[in-house]
Amino acid sequence: MTAPALPADSVGIVTPEKLAFHGPLSLDCGRILPRFDLMVETYGTLNAQASNAVLICHALSSDHHAAGYHSPSDRKPGWWDVMIGPGKPIDTRRFFVVCCNNIGGCKGSTGPASTDPESGERYGPDFPIVTVRDWVRAQALLADRLGIRRWAAVAGGSLGGMQALQWAMDYPERIAHAVVIAAAPRLSAQNIAFNEVARQAIRTDPEFHDGRYYQHGTVPRRGLMLARMLGHITYLSDESMGSKFGRELREGKLGYNFDTEFQVESYLRYQGQAFVDRFDANTYLLITKTLDYFDPAAEHGHDLAAACRQARARFLVVSFTSDWRFSPARSREIVQALVAADRPVTYGEITADQGHDSFLMPIPDYLRTLSAYFDRVHQEIAAHAR
Amino acid sequence: MTAPALPADSVGIVTPEKLAFHGPLSLDCGRILPRFDLMVETYGTLNAQASNAVLICHALSSDHHAAGYHSPSDRKPGWWDVMIGPGKPIDTRRFFVVCCNNIGGCKGSTGPASTDPESGERYGPDFPIVTVRDWVRAQALLADRLGIRRWAAVAGGSLGGMQALQWAMDYPERIAHAVVIAAAPRLSAQNIAFNEVARQAIRTDPEFHDGRYYQHGTVPRRGLMLARMLGHITYLSDESMGSKFGRELREGKLGYNFDTEFQVESYLRYQGQAFVDRFDANTYLLITKTLDYFDPAAEHGHDLAAACRQARARFLVVSFTSDWRFSPARSREIVQALVAADRPVTYGEITADQGHDSFLMPIPDYLRTLSAYFDRVHQEIAAHAR
Repeated sequence: MTAPALPADSVGIVTPEKLAFHGPLSLDCGRILPRFDLMVETYGTLNAQASNAVLICHALSSDHHAAGYHSPSDRKPGWWDVMIGPGKPIDTRRFFVVCCNNIGGCKGSTGPASTDPESGERYGPDFPIVTVRDWVRAQALLADRLGIRRWAAVAGGSLGGMQALQWAMDYPERIAHAVVIAAAPRLSAQNIAFNEVARQAIRTDPEFHDGRYYQHGTVPRRGLMLARMLGHITYLSDESMGSKFGRELREGKLGYNFDTEFQVESYLRYQGQAFVDRFDANTYLLITKTLDYFDPAAEHGHDLAAACRQARARFLVVSFTSDWRFSPARSREIVQALVAADRPVTYGEITADQGHDSFLMPIPDYLRTLSAYFDRVHQEIAAHAR
Repeated sequence: MTAPALPADSVGIVTPEKLAFHGPLSLDCGRILPRFDLMVETYGTLNAQASNAVLICHALSSDHHAAGYHSPSDRKPGWWDVMIGPGKPIDTRRFFVVCCNNIGGCKGSTGPASTDPESGERYGPDFPIVTVRDWVRAQALLADRLGIRRWAAVAGGSLGGMQALQWAMDYPERIAHAVVIAAAPRLSAQNIAFNEVARQAIRTDPEFHDGRYYQHGTVPRRGLMLARMLGHITYLSDESMGSKFGRELREGKLGYNFDTEFQVESYLRYQGQAFVDRFDANTYLLITKTLDYFDPAAEHGHDLAAACRQARARFLVVSFTSDWRFSPARSREIVQALVAADRPVTYGEITADQGHDSFLMPIPDYLRTLSAYFDRVHQEIAAHAR
């Protein structure tokens, strides 16, 4: 029996690679990581000028596996497979695409579950709280390692978009285009509030043991499940939940008990339980803090336009009408600051029902917008090569 | 030292009364409560015709204490004190105002923490799941007891508004006006999803003991705290959270740890912890189900207008622009159904930043709307009395 053929526009079977960085990395919190690993995937080929590299940045619960399959039996491809591949908007026949699991992560890069070289124990809760700026700093070392002086583009959705924005501010000479999708220039009080409920769910789970659950042989399953269930509500729109589940009952009638009755309950419980098996609670806690702390305007007197004046990149900013986690109004704040800072920016507000999750979906207008933009990026590279 | 004087427009010191009902109450789930108590407060005086009675219905986490103070040292009055009192919109010089803790509650009415007369044990998780229709049935028995054949008005916000709507459908001859504020004709999938996360938080708390925590001498504090924190996010708007807390840090700078850092975190934790001391987890679970089950259109082929055709009352429907729990669009569904059913309805959409909680707030436009409406109710009563 032969394995089913992979789609023709897939990057195919990919193998992540763990890269070790032996120099120390100074973090915003004042602490230093003496060494760290990054788990990395790449798709496509770096050209001779090293001018066609695109960095993909992942969001809260994601990782380095952005496209393709790890084995022919994988049920699902990488998280942004709709966007990356031969003939897709980020066309791997043109671009050398790089994606890494960020530090603090739980998919192979150095994070809370890694062994602290100084103590010989797992970091656990002692892993430093990392910032978007720290991630960008680590990604810059990755670029050095790969021989990439300047990214043709840095792109991402949600927290990934925040990294693209930070790249443009912190390494203005090393990024030609920043593609900032479904992001915000900083979290609102409501965004922080949702993160705080998620954190409390994990931290009050008796199996959390102050984050040292690895040593106790436990996992704060209940807390992480609740955090994920809550997250899912904020990723979907009221409309998309309504059209997906409505008020459909699993058994067709009310049971007058606390069993799973409505389809939406069943969906959320399943999502919550599945997440526990693939994600680390300390990483989840850490990355909610990374989100809360993101505020590039803060060190410029809370003037986002002043922060944007550092940038030299060109920008594509994209939002989705039904996204209430990071609504179009939040993306427009970024656009307005870029305009005020006299930076070139293209803004696309995509009509979509799927809420924040839209950035992961094959929405035709969205794919067309990114295709058109990356066509231009490619043309620039080709023009320079001549 | 004398106690501070109560405000002149307060109903003053009030004393709740527990009324015992000895007849059986048939519930929608098919079970029967052999007897039950209702904890009741009243303000003002019932007139000779018993034509000036107004029933106030409470929401998820509230109770019979709608106005006034239980003692001069109370820091806060009842939950709708802005609306009820001499000279206030529901003017206690004109109206006899009644409010009861609903069955299933935890403030003196029969609920999960009460003793089951059949087993001699606390009901706990065996307390039947009650519906809005069950509550209305119990409230009708309360009306009988008080000698009220017909309410001048039934009014409430959120789940309270749902009871007012149900009254108009189930007892068309016993209600002259229904005042339905910040409500919805049924919960959306997203509303149910939030309730489900709250329920899972409580039910997965190891101190929940399948709802028999009374016997174990425990309280599922963590779960109930999480449920309340989450609730609070949905009661406030993003705007009101932003203007109340912004991204203010308690210590003025980032701590790079998991202590309470942002003001909004501190607020939520405080609200969550305070709630645990005043509310019962089994009641909270039960009432989230009451909300999920509310769907008066269901038995009319999901045609809300058909359900509304049963009503004989006149309606005031009120919503608040920043309410995203039960948005103005949900109130307009009710209005449209009433119009389609040819029922008289006045609709007020109040511009307010405070989100769902607006219905509890002294917002001038809101107070004026209810004042004007209850003036009319009063004039009708006066006209009939002549």
